Amino acid sequence: MIRSIGRICIYRRLLAEMDRRGQRQVYSHELARLAQTTPAQVRRDLMNVSGMGTPSKGYSVPDMLDSLDGYLDAGHCEPIVLVGIGYLGRALLGHFAGRHPKLHITAAFDIDSEKTGGMIHGCPCYHLQQLGEITRDRNIHLGIIAVPANTAQQVAEKMIECGIRAILNFSPERLNLPANIYVEDIDVTVAIERMAFFARQKNTQNKRNMNHAGS
Amino acid sequence: MIRSIGRICIYRRLLAEMDRRGQRQVYSHELARLAQTTPAQVRRDLMNVSGMGTPSKGYSVPDMLDSLDGYLDAGHCEPIVLVGIGYLGRALLGHFAGRHPKLHITAAFDIDSEKTGGMIHGCPCYHLQQLGEITRDRNIHLGIIAVPANTAQQVAEKMIECGIRAILNFSPERLNLPANIYVEDIDVTVAIERMAFFARQKNTQNKRNMNHAGS
Repeated sequence: MIRSIGRICIYRRLLAEMDRRGQRQVYSHELARLAQTTPAQVRRDLMNVSGMGTPSKGYSVPDMLDSLDGYLDAGHCEPIVLVGIGYLGRALLGHFAGRHPKLHITAAFDIDSEKTGGMIHGCPCYHLQQLGEITRDRNIHLGIIAVPANTAQQVAEKMIECGIRAILNFSPERLNLPANIYVEDIDVTVAIERMAFFARQKNTQNKRNMNHAGS
Repeated sequence: MIRSIGRICIYRRLLAEMDRRGQRQVYSHELARLAQTTPAQVRRDLMNVSGMGTPSKGYSVPDMLDSLDGYLDAGHCEPIVLVGIGYLGRALLGHFAGRHPKLHITAAFDIDSEKTGGMIHGCPCYHLQQLGEITRDRNIHLGIIAVPANTAQQVAEKMIECGIRAILNFSPERLNLPANIYVEDIDVTVAIERMAFFARQKNTQNKRNMNHAGS
């Protein structure tokens, strides 16, 4: 389920790009190539979302885009809180500001009062003490954690107390939270370690192949 | 394979933390709980890496840490290049500077000459034209892409020309690259969309349960 939603988000982005360019029809094999999956997987995913079979002339780009919007988005713009106004928090605010029609980082929080009180990329910054007040006032259920590892668990627990139900966790800390809370981890260090590992494997493999060719 | 390496990176981080606290032994069920996997999975992963079976008194923390270091790391510190000195690139430089014993962002690049020529968090910043010169001089094979979607493919191709073999891609663009290049995508927007989707599902489910309880 988690993976299929990730793919559906990617199809939507690709379809939106096609729509902007004026493309009206798309075949599953074209979407599959761009999304780096198989045509059968695309057809299965789109069938699940739209309830429509596979048209022989390809999918209508605007119709399928409507179906995916209806499936993925809330009817309204959803507010998100961010905790941690360090380098990463600021990058997320800059990266995300005004870019998404349905998701919006509404308020940012930190415990360092030098970082609070102002606006960053149009987003007001508050002291962490005000988290509950703001999430309850504005009915916010989505939170992003961009604090150091040693405070992430504590921040996550506070978020949950304040009504947050889904967390995107950028800290390297594994959070230990109730099962009804959705957590998605983005661990940059693990991603870099993994990339280095595979690059070395490919390198060793290439060297082996070269040795083999030369022997 | 990709998933198991991710888990092994996480075990290593947990073991390093235990080692710092002076903990000498650890059971698979303890690692499993912290890494959010099963004890059987931990035992299988550690057996694959270390070749050792499961000791009845638990694993030796320092010995297992040595095994994982030997498996995951190169003998030397590995250099990485970063392309894109925007919000995200700066955040990565700040977040990563001097934090990892074996991986180091050695040089950052951009096409905007206002961003180049200086140092950011100890990392020298160059014009993208100098990429090949620096990767070849320093034998660099790892690259991070933190540029906007519309230039990511072009940057990736240039990286490969310059000898990069593994790429961590933060842009939302799906890269179309030769099969011998390892690519890891970190797509923040997809992660946020997915979190919002699941929060809404859980919410709907809770409401359904409440309605059901009340009916």
